[in-house]
Amino acid sequence: MAGTGPDVARAPEAADIEAAAARIAPHVRVTPTLTLEHAPGRIELKLECLQVSGTFKARGAFARLLSARASALAAGLPPPSGVVAASGGNHGIAVAHAARAIGMAADVFVPRTTPAAKLARLRGLGATVHAVGDEYAQAFAASRAWAAERGALESHAYDQFDTLAGQGTLAREWLRQSPDLDVLLVAVGGGGLIGGIAAWLDSAARAGLRVPRLVAVESEGCPTLHAAMAAGRIVEITPTGLAADSLGARRVGELMFPLAQRRIERAVLVPDAAIAAAQAALWRQVRIATEPGGATAHAALASGAFRPADGERVGVLVCGANVDLRALADGVDAAA
Amino acid sequence: MAGTGPDVARAPEAADIEAAAARIAPHVRVTPTLTLEHAPGRIELKLECLQVSGTFKARGAFARLLSARASALAAGLPPPSGVVAASGGNHGIAVAHAARAIGMAADVFVPRTTPAAKLARLRGLGATVHAVGDEYAQAFAASRAWAAERGALESHAYDQFDTLAGQGTLAREWLRQSPDLDVLLVAVGGGGLIGGIAAWLDSAARAGLRVPRLVAVESEGCPTLHAAMAAGRIVEITPTGLAADSLGARRVGELMFPLAQRRIERAVLVPDAAIAAAQAALWRQVRIATEPGGATAHAALASGAFRPADGERVGVLVCGANVDLRALADGVDAAA
Repeated sequence: MAGTGPDVARAPEAADIEAAAARIAPHVRVTPTLTLEHAPGRIELKLECLQVSGTFKARGAFARLLSARASALAAGLPPPSGVVAASGGNHGIAVAHAARAIGMAADVFVPRTTPAAKLARLRGLGATVHAVGDEYAQAFAASRAWAAERGALESHAYDQFDTLAGQGTLAREWLRQSPDLDVLLVAVGGGGLIGGIAAWLDSAARAGLRVPRLVAVESEGCPTLHAAMAAGRIVEITPTGLAADSLGARRVGELMFPLAQRRIERAVLVPDAAIAAAQAALWRQVRIATEPGGATAHAALASGAFRPADGERVGVLVCGANVDLRALADGVDAAA
Repeated sequence: MAGTGPDVARAPEAADIEAAAARIAPHVRVTPTLTLEHAPGRIELKLECLQVSGTFKARGAFARLLSARASALAAGLPPPSGVVAASGGNHGIAVAHAARAIGMAADVFVPRTTPAAKLARLRGLGATVHAVGDEYAQAFAASRAWAAERGALESHAYDQFDTLAGQGTLAREWLRQSPDLDVLLVAVGGGGLIGGIAAWLDSAARAGLRVPRLVAVESEGCPTLHAAMAAGRIVEITPTGLAADSLGARRVGELMFPLAQRRIERAVLVPDAAIAAAQAALWRQVRIATEPGGATAHAALASGAFRPADGERVGVLVCGANVDLRALADGVDAAA
């Protein structure tokens, strides 16, 4: 990918995340926090579900595209005219949104099994959709071949320097809003979001700052990080269950795993029933609509899989809202 | 209503609103604000739809009950053991929620036409529901008679000192979060919310502080304030249309009207189609679920009924989220 930006084979540090934050600021929202009443200690929700494109993925997508453009300009090269990504889900939506916002073409590779509603949404955002193969791995392989052939810019869903730097801006923003949190609960799929957060915390801790503990939350059907932390190395799993559409990576990223081992206290697992109950509770008690992956961190708290110590101030990342409203209504009714 | 709190026949001032804010703080949420990207000038949403009970009504309900309790204690009298309200909608829900939270009984009078889902919700919050008459006026009359007979504490939906003081805490909170807003857009039914906001702004302006302009937004079917401002006196209307379930008062309150004449720049009217489009846009672009009344202020901006001046910083109050998710889904589909 000559001339298309830094493909750095390391995790970002604070300065990289600061640079990403400055680049993406005109295009993303500072998402609000909400402290719940009557909680023992304090429960604070970070409402990243209100981010542009409906999830945190917009941060990484804008960081990737804008970094590539800046690198090209710095090198006296023409900026990339397009980007290629593989994902029928939140990453694809975020890349399509970001590309349209800054005037680039987006080619998004999805498996042929992708629902029509998601294809329509991607096309509605101006992306060219390529339906290839029966599962994500085949769509991803096709996207790589397509990009290599054309020298096109690739945007990886999680295992890429700029993606991690972009997601890391969420931690920078959140700790500015709420510097006194004791622990952060963050859902994990491929680990791009928690990897970026871990990168920010790791830099801050090395600079001698007080940082909150970091706890990963995974659905029992998608335990990529739990399995890797138990094995001491990245392992492959077969994602299943309610949250697999957004958390269903087969493995965590290589860039994030050393950070995870250093900075993530543990990976808590929650069953699908707890995720569904958390979705219903977030709607009933807070009027926040989330997809299963977006409610997974809250599920750890609501189900008791994570129990805060007395007086502990807990930050819960609510990370995605790309949910079908009728499906959410069915879930809320079922939980009644 | 001897011994049940101050039934003050005036609108509250800043000190009254400060007192209400201190009383209700343990029970309500500081609701977040969200600045939208890419807006000319600045568009900031105040997400009061995330308030406990789903709407701003919780502020006034808690203010009423806690003020009555404090007055009784100060007079050496037993605190009121229960409260009576008339409303099958957001006020009834808020009163039931507040009464349960502070250990009081709630008797809620509703017309017999109230949907079963709302009755179930009120009962789920522990209220005793009295279904009387065919419309709100009859249920309200019955609630008054019932309260007079028993010397019970009444909580009025909008035309009561404590209600206005409680809703005024929203303005106090918002201007602390966002002191530089130029104009506030606020939906109006009976005028309790905008009356409380006007009371806060009026006190601040008289103290020499810079305050934002205040613009009322009403649905064309519920123009209580528009009609009153045009006539120079309170007039009665027959509420109709999409937002009538939450904005459908027959007249604005007597306590708020002098404030409205002094402090509200104008009352903008929006058609039902603009309200439905605003509901759809808030879900699609922000992932915020609102009821029609909750989206009405945003409708003025999105439809162009209110046009900000160049660079103007506009605050939009998103005030209620007690919406049926399937109805919202239908509306979003219809707007596509």
